[in-house]
Amino acid sequence: MLWFTEYYSGEGMDLKGTGLTIKVKNALTTKTPFQEILLLDTEDFGKMLVLDGAIQTTEKDEFIYHEMIVHPALFTLGRKPERVLVIGGGDGGTVREVIKHNPEKVELVEIDREVVEFAKRELPSISCALDDERVELIFDDGREYIKGKENLYDIIIVDCSDPIGPSRVLYEEEFYKDAFKALKDDGIFVTQSESPFAQNRVHKKVVKELQKVFSIVRPYFAFIPTYPSGMWSFTIGSKILDPLTVNPEKLLGKVSNLEKSAGKLKYYNSQIHYGAFAVPNFIYEEE
Amino acid sequence: MLWFTEYYSGEGMDLKGTGLTIKVKNALTTKTPFQEILLLDTEDFGKMLVLDGAIQTTEKDEFIYHEMIVHPALFTLGRKPERVLVIGGGDGGTVREVIKHNPEKVELVEIDREVVEFAKRELPSISCALDDERVELIFDDGREYIKGKENLYDIIIVDCSDPIGPSRVLYEEEFYKDAFKALKDDGIFVTQSESPFAQNRVHKKVVKELQKVFSIVRPYFAFIPTYPSGMWSFTIGSKILDPLTVNPEKLLGKVSNLEKSAGKLKYYNSQIHYGAFAVPNFIYEEE
Repeated sequence: MLWFTEYYSGEGMDLKGTGLTIKVKNALTTKTPFQEILLLDTEDFGKMLVLDGAIQTTEKDEFIYHEMIVHPALFTLGRKPERVLVIGGGDGGTVREVIKHNPEKVELVEIDREVVEFAKRELPSISCALDDERVELIFDDGREYIKGKENLYDIIIVDCSDPIGPSRVLYEEEFYKDAFKALKDDGIFVTQSESPFAQNRVHKKVVKELQKVFSIVRPYFAFIPTYPSGMWSFTIGSKILDPLTVNPEKLLGKVSNLEKSAGKLKYYNSQIHYGAFAVPNFIYEEE
Repeated sequence: MLWFTEYYSGEGMDLKGTGLTIKVKNALTTKTPFQEILLLDTEDFGKMLVLDGAIQTTEKDEFIYHEMIVHPALFTLGRKPERVLVIGGGDGGTVREVIKHNPEKVELVEIDREVVEFAKRELPSISCALDDERVELIFDDGREYIKGKENLYDIIIVDCSDPIGPSRVLYEEEFYKDAFKALKDDGIFVTQSESPFAQNRVHKKVVKELQKVFSIVRPYFAFIPTYPSGMWSFTIGSKILDPLTVNPEKLLGKVSNLEKSAGKLKYYNSQIHYGAFAVPNFIYEEE
């Protein structure tokens, strides 16, 4: 019997002796210039994508991460998005959710071409929107790609891995400043911001750095069973639009319209839109 | 190096090949007539209480479970509670949170006396309120204890283990009917109701059975990193008082008063009071 265990460790991780262990039916590995890709076929979570030993996404619970990194910001925008930039997210799940908002164009900037090719081949239910004609795939370093861009995007989404290796620069104030410039006047930035339970210092640093750049900064939370501790966060940085002051009735109508054309969402709804922003006390307690 | 792994299995568990593995510094075991008690000293979670192989509580994250099983119902009551009944919860954490509301009397009905004695000795930060003079310890079967009682309690809290063995009867309509009768006219019932992700059918059954008995039934959710999937639920059954219609300003004042006398809460606050009731779509999706 084959078991895969992700032992939580590495920079920024508060847990030192904890892991999630999962029974595996089949395993496929490949090495790219950037990382080791592991595809596991599991009993409980379906196919599971693991990069450098860290679970990235699984067929069973990916809908939570991908819906929650996309819909709070996109529904806060309150209008049809013209141009959306996704940094990271090579599996395509984030783009799949963005497409439901019917944008004119989505640019996906992924550093590792092989992740995209791998996801297209092995994870079609997640990568399905990558072939959409409105999606441009750019194989580049997202940190470099955004430099010098001004007033271009309605939404920028950072769907990155932990702050180790190439993703480290996506957690820094200088990057957030460039993202701010690349956004339109009512633009919204959103990034995954690690586990407030298992990576508390990293999470708080993201929020703090974003507060130096954006006037409205809103962390929010979702249950992601295959990520460390199961408690995950995302953080919105916004110029003028506040997710908390979205009109509830209008939101209800917009969600209903999206579901009519794109199918039922599985996690996000208008209750979750507000409820996810409720902050448990311990996260920002003084040390 | 010693590691403890809880493999998720047993009746009602949807996961079949998943576990949480935790590094252990020291272990202490004992057997009672009802179950096997294991006390682990861990690097990441401090002391950890395990009953029959299932993690019950840890020093590091117990505050989430215990605050969340108590405060939503107690703050919904909106007045000083006279008499509170806790079924299960032999570690004392639930009673500790109830005591913060300054009740006249708390009855703890725990089937296994040795769990209480063990917690008093080994987990003082959790069991600390069990010696309070307003607390009566009753070593009995909670299912039997409640039969025939009428109009006695302001609040009944079911802090039980999974629906295997002695706890099974605490998941059934007949028990909820007896609890309804034992409550006063404005009384509130609350039970832990398993993981909506990992034990979806059991969770939904609790909600459904409660709906047969109580006119107001409200499931709510919290992050509990050491429970299966990290996504946990509680469900309130209420006669007339609805947690969702509690006046936000009054609630804010009441929480502030409680914290002045009992110390800062670590998870619950007035945002969480409403936000925790936001229901992700997938939980009650038709199959």
